[in-house]
Amino acid sequence: MRCELLSVGTEILLGDIVNTNAQFLAKELASMGIDIYYQSVVGDNKERMLQAFKEGLSRSDMIITTGGLGPTKDDMTKELACEYFGYKCELHEESLESIKEYFRRMGREFVESNEKQAYFPKEAIILKNNAGTAPGAIIKKDDKTIIVLPGPPSEMKRMFNESVRPYLEKLTGNTIVSEVVRIHGVGESKVEELVQDLIDNGKNPTVAPYAKEGEVTLRVTAKAKTKEEGEKLIDPVLTEIKNRLGDSIYNIGEEGLNLTVAKLLVDKKLTIGTSESCTGGLLGAGLIDYPGISSSFLEGAITYSNEAKIKTLGVKKETLEKFGAVSEETAREMAEGIRKRCGADIGVSTTGIAGPDGGTDDKPVGLVYIGLSIADKTIVTRNVFNGDRNSVRRRACLKAFDMIRLEINK
Amino acid sequence: MRCELLSVGTEILLGDIVNTNAQFLAKELASMGIDIYYQSVVGDNKERMLQAFKEGLSRSDMIITTGGLGPTKDDMTKELACEYFGYKCELHEESLESIKEYFRRMGREFVESNEKQAYFPKEAIILKNNAGTAPGAIIKKDDKTIIVLPGPPSEMKRMFNESVRPYLEKLTGNTIVSEVVRIHGVGESKVEELVQDLIDNGKNPTVAPYAKEGEVTLRVTAKAKTKEEGEKLIDPVLTEIKNRLGDSIYNIGEEGLNLTVAKLLVDKKLTIGTSESCTGGLLGAGLIDYPGISSSFLEGAITYSNEAKIKTLGVKKETLEKFGAVSEETAREMAEGIRKRCGADIGVSTTGIAGPDGGTDDKPVGLVYIGLSIADKTIVTRNVFNGDRNSVRRRACLKAFDMIRLEINK
Repeated sequence: MRCELLSVGTEILLGDIVNTNAQFLAKELASMGIDIYYQSVVGDNKERMLQAFKEGLSRSDMIITTGGLGPTKDDMTKELACEYFGYKCELHEESLESIKEYFRRMGREFVESNEKQAYFPKEAIILKNNAGTAPGAIIKKDDKTIIVLPGPPSEMKRMFNESVRPYLEKLTGNTIVSEVVRIHGVGESKVEELVQDLIDNGKNPTVAPYAKEGEVTLRVTAKAKTKEEGEKLIDPVLTEIKNRLGDSIYNIGEEGLNLTVAKLLVDKKLTIGTSESCTGGLLGAGLIDYPGISSSFLEGAITYSNEAKIKTLGVKKETLEKFGAVSEETAREMAEGIRKRCGADIGVSTTGIAGPDGGTDDKPVGLVYIGLSIADKTIVTRNVFNGDRNSVRRRACLKAFDMIRLEINK
Repeated sequence: MRCELLSVGTEILLGDIVNTNAQFLAKELASMGIDIYYQSVVGDNKERMLQAFKEGLSRSDMIITTGGLGPTKDDMTKELACEYFGYKCELHEESLESIKEYFRRMGREFVESNEKQAYFPKEAIILKNNAGTAPGAIIKKDDKTIIVLPGPPSEMKRMFNESVRPYLEKLTGNTIVSEVVRIHGVGESKVEELVQDLIDNGKNPTVAPYAKEGEVTLRVTAKAKTKEEGEKLIDPVLTEIKNRLGDSIYNIGEEGLNLTVAKLLVDKKLTIGTSESCTGGLLGAGLIDYPGISSSFLEGAITYSNEAKIKTLGVKKETLEKFGAVSEETAREMAEGIRKRCGADIGVSTTGIAGPDGGTDDKPVGLVYIGLSIADKTIVTRNVFNGDRNSVRRRACLKAFDMIRLEINK
């Protein structure tokens, strides 16, 4: 089956937002073995949208649209898809009730213009929106299909997972089995060097490297008739990769480093306290991404000021004066201080210069000390991270999580 | 002038990476008053790429491509653009020398396959790549133009800024002036209701609404000969919008709610302490996004456990027992506790149920109490936010920032 993506909206066309919807859908469809040869973006314009439907369905079996399901006159994706197929829209009472219920739940008054979102042709399969007002729809005529999904990513993703994926899985008989090997602490070119033959010779499964901020992943993908058959194809390749990359692999699966470490803490019944200066709460927020973390995460301290470092963490005034807030010594006392404060098994700390200003020759922008107090010792690493303020902070969190992981797994 | 974007590459088509190049270019072109009605993505495929050139140039004057200028046989954007126009490529000695020089600068040995990147038709304007190996090109025939740019964002952006922008500025005489009005606390449909006539009747300037998680924006855009002339067109419309939406507008400009509030705190010399349960550090991280915040942000406490709420914030054990950790009373004591702890002008707190589990009829998933202690009072709001765990936490932060803003501005 051949599918293409059509993102609708001036905000994408004019570059106000990045089109993350297209990435999400492309990845999901690819993982189901559905071919995607085109992605397009058009604005809320009748003529151009109809033309896009025509061109798209002349070369593909299906178009999945995102955006243009809102309550305003500008929003006309659903209406135009129906017009393209020659279907008439009528009020769908159940959808209207859902939308009204949504407003009630939010404690807001129902707005008349939202009624438009409850109109559908009787030929459509209506997709319930459990995260917003606009329902989606699968609209089909003969062997051509348009699936219209809402634009806000949280609504679109939930609707895709709940309704569209099961629908597509029935349509395609193929099963694609895919695993992601996640690596921290080894650069992309080094990873590729180590598994170059697997990348070059892989047909089924294939091995594809990809680098993003602070981590490298290898996606291993097999096409098979059943899930079991696919897993049998993948397993020996995963084993080979594990042999070559060792403990720089932090997870095989979807969870990133923060979730992997949070799960590890909970599984091993280890408690933790965090003390953050330059990361300012991101480390704590990363742990709390994991829903079960409450049994492990005792307390976090965001100690941006020296006063807070002294009062809450017990960092010595002399340490701050002699070595500065961004120093190995301060990182050490912060990690030990938070651990003592909340009586945790592990204390972790960050202190650094995220930029854009404040750097010196000795202590450049991007310098972050990370402290880890665990068992009977405290380790401090000195790191210089690349990128802008946010990138430095995110990389510092990844490194902190990786230090925790490696120590626990020792 | 009408231009469209064509991104080339399997990694975008399969969703391995987000297409940030398209966003960058779209924003730049829009700001120059160049119309963009289409963006597309195709893979490295001869037939489909030639078809994309044909379709694109039948409806637009210019296509800007990104990607497919690499040294491998898969990379054929430039070659196909030349084939489309009927131009022959030949070795451009100067480009070859630049590429070799680049390898020398990187301390790497020249790879023969990269010679391909130095082939251009004599009709093209060659664009030097100062951040990588592949030069770009402006390839023109009659009144149709294809501009080919490299795929890596750092190379593409630099080449655009150094060579393409000056070229395009000469072509267009126009300037576009645009402002974004940012609104919190009023839903999209309500905002539109209030400014429907401005949206409907706006020709120059235009008014375009857009909703994203927890906020609504209105973009006001004017086309003019000079910047001053454009501002004169925009100003009365901004004033009218301000009159109608009042203090639900938190900013006119690029900064989001967290940066707006952080700046407000610093400008007004107000100090703040944060205490977070369900947001787990996100509130602190949002403040620290603002580089100058250190003078205002005294301390943050991530108190996920009851013990930490009692010990660090002084929340009463009886309060937790009688009303629960997620309650108006606990939020109040948390806000007052952190304020007292660090001696700040403002104390803010969050406590709630981010989900996916843990909700009851009385206290559903998405319920978040937000406390704000300021001057001689403490306000607590009860909120029910929609969406997944992360969305609930992000919306709670936005609401907290908005409460701070409204109180300070009173």
